[in-house]
Amino acid sequence: MSIHIASTTAPVNIATLKYWGKRDADLNLPTNSSISVTLSQDDLRTLTSVATSESFNKDTLWINGKEESLDSKRTQDCLKDLRSLREEMEVNDKSLPRFSQWKLHIVSENNFPTAAGLASSAAGFAALVVAIAKLYQLPQSMSELSKIARKGSGSACRSLFGGYVAWEMGQLANGEDSMAVPVASMDEWPEMKAAILVVSDVKKDTPSTQGMQLTVHTSDLFKERINNVVPRRFEEMKTAIRNKNFKEFAELTMKDSNSFHATCLDSYPPIFYMNDTSKKIIRLIHSINEFFGEVIVAYTFDAGPNAVLYYLEKDEAKIFAFIYTLLKKVEGWANKYTEPELQSFEKLFVEYKDKITFQMDSELYEGINRVILTKVGSGPQSTNECLIDESTGSPK
Amino acid sequence: MSIHIASTTAPVNIATLKYWGKRDADLNLPTNSSISVTLSQDDLRTLTSVATSESFNKDTLWINGKEESLDSKRTQDCLKDLRSLREEMEVNDKSLPRFSQWKLHIVSENNFPTAAGLASSAAGFAALVVAIAKLYQLPQSMSELSKIARKGSGSACRSLFGGYVAWEMGQLANGEDSMAVPVASMDEWPEMKAAILVVSDVKKDTPSTQGMQLTVHTSDLFKERINNVVPRRFEEMKTAIRNKNFKEFAELTMKDSNSFHATCLDSYPPIFYMNDTSKKIIRLIHSINEFFGEVIVAYTFDAGPNAVLYYLEKDEAKIFAFIYTLLKKVEGWANKYTEPELQSFEKLFVEYKDKITFQMDSELYEGINRVILTKVGSGPQSTNECLIDESTGSPK
Repeated sequence: MSIHIASTTAPVNIATLKYWGKRDADLNLPTNSSISVTLSQDDLRTLTSVATSESFNKDTLWINGKEESLDSKRTQDCLKDLRSLREEMEVNDKSLPRFSQWKLHIVSENNFPTAAGLASSAAGFAALVVAIAKLYQLPQSMSELSKIARKGSGSACRSLFGGYVAWEMGQLANGEDSMAVPVASMDEWPEMKAAILVVSDVKKDTPSTQGMQLTVHTSDLFKERINNVVPRRFEEMKTAIRNKNFKEFAELTMKDSNSFHATCLDSYPPIFYMNDTSKKIIRLIHSINEFFGEVIVAYTFDAGPNAVLYYLEKDEAKIFAFIYTLLKKVEGWANKYTEPELQSFEKLFVEYKDKITFQMDSELYEGINRVILTKVGSGPQSTNECLIDESTGSPK
Repeated sequence: MSIHIASTTAPVNIATLKYWGKRDADLNLPTNSSISVTLSQDDLRTLTSVATSESFNKDTLWINGKEESLDSKRTQDCLKDLRSLREEMEVNDKSLPRFSQWKLHIVSENNFPTAAGLASSAAGFAALVVAIAKLYQLPQSMSELSKIARKGSGSACRSLFGGYVAWEMGQLANGEDSMAVPVASMDEWPEMKAAILVVSDVKKDTPSTQGMQLTVHTSDLFKERINNVVPRRFEEMKTAIRNKNFKEFAELTMKDSNSFHATCLDSYPPIFYMNDTSKKIIRLIHSINEFFGEVIVAYTFDAGPNAVLYYLEKDEAKIFAFIYTLLKKVEGWANKYTEPELQSFEKLFVEYKDKITFQMDSELYEGINRVILTKVGSGPQSTNECLIDESTGSPK
């Protein structure tokens, strides 16, 4: 039995200019362009191995050790597009094995626990598409492949690049111009760090696919956001990134997060993703920036209560003086910093303490499950790690 | 010593189309027209007595038994306008005593505790203006007087009428066309009831005067609200009220509350008035309406976490089946309903219980301090109650 295998990793990305609203729900075509920062795969990545063989009976997917359905239309659309690109190659070169006709085994694993509360569909679809493209030896560029990943999960298209990534909404009805493009590589602005504050929440959120269409159809303020607010910010944020202008980048990021959540609240019935802990984090970040008299840290919130903070490496100690002191009881610090390093944050806080004029909520940590400390990172990477047994074609 | 005294009561009003944003902060000229329901003075009112005498040494104000400053520019503007109208009369009729030159004693009391968490400035300025107008025997109409009350506190202008009241924003720079006008009297739609859920909150809100100007200057979505969303709703809501179309009235009320809070969230830094309890109330109201398959209750939130629910008398039992069952531990029921009446709400709930498919939060009551049960009510009323000692001119 001849089994062909390929593996890749793909990163998580967190939007700084939010994707919210589809103009075509089938093709995942957005109502506005968006921008994201790709996070380091040292901390957050999906590893996907795919195998194909004439002997496989059916397409099969395993995620984190568990067999999962491949029936969703979104996944089927991705597989169909990839097979059809492969088929073109096979038509032109009869010597190629007929991978396009064979079944696939797909095995996927995240290096972060589901309990981290992070949506993994972006990294998941990005890895799926890139792994199969590699297996099929497709010649398409990452931007071309991003259109396929986009059909799986809109924001997945942005996980096909590292660094700073734009998803250009495009204008065509078939979505052929709705794809990810790099704004800047991670090497052009490597100092960007990110801290994810995973916020506890009992309540189940409105799923984002459902939530965004409710906003599109019911929010009176949404039109203004997509027609005027975001197009202006899209250009401003690309410029801020290329100029490494953190203040501008940070302010746009915070404003756009709030604007997105404002249109959720303006939906009918209203959608709430942030909770009281999220709001406390927002207040804290504004207070920290005010304390230092400059904008050194930004927050952004996706369709849930978790905060993602962006800041530059040079300001980390100043920011962690507050964040670590307030959240030291929360899991996630020890794997990144030694005890003396952590103590130095607290010592710095003691220096600041007398000058602090804002209210610090000493119980903030109670609403937060863990912190994930990471930074800007690379796009999908080929890897020698393989999740599939080469002799059986089954998960290892 | 000759002392002249007049007394009036004035009601609280709760906007159903929100006032948020000033185009002239000095004159309290709004960026949009608004609509409110005047609440019954049986439950919520300010009683104000004013006295004037040649023998008084200085303008003096007592609120709820405590002497308060009259120095604020807003109060001074009101007194100046009223005295100038009186002076016109005195110029035309020399026989009139020269009240316009005499000092005033103003004594004011609310029939609801400050702890109720309700802003009392609207009722307070309305009562102040109407009491002095009465003392001065001013011939001006309530709409004319509402322009003076508006200078004290924008929303106070709406407390000069009972029932359903519009504050027309006006266009003139001097504010002469920015005044309250009746949309419908309480007798035209007397079935409207209101329940105020006073929500506990430790945090101090951004004062509304400051908050609304932050929104005006920083929210990108605000322009859309004032230029397009509210003008359309203003006409629709007046029509809904005149047609006694509760469904339309309720939906517009809920949407406009959410729209206002959305622009707060879109401000920079963002302003949050609603907390997690407020959000639970919003979800509960939508769930109740869904349960009954029709819109029978609406929520609205001002610049704080308290909910005001509007509903029609005929639907009260259906709504209270849920609200009373969930909030029976909260203060405020016993002064309106007998024990058997309250039990009947619970019995009704038992009937519904098996059909309920939504999640009921049995701990909702923990976030709520009290309920105030009231209904649509009348405008300012003359009264024989007097808070001033006729012989001394001091508070009784």
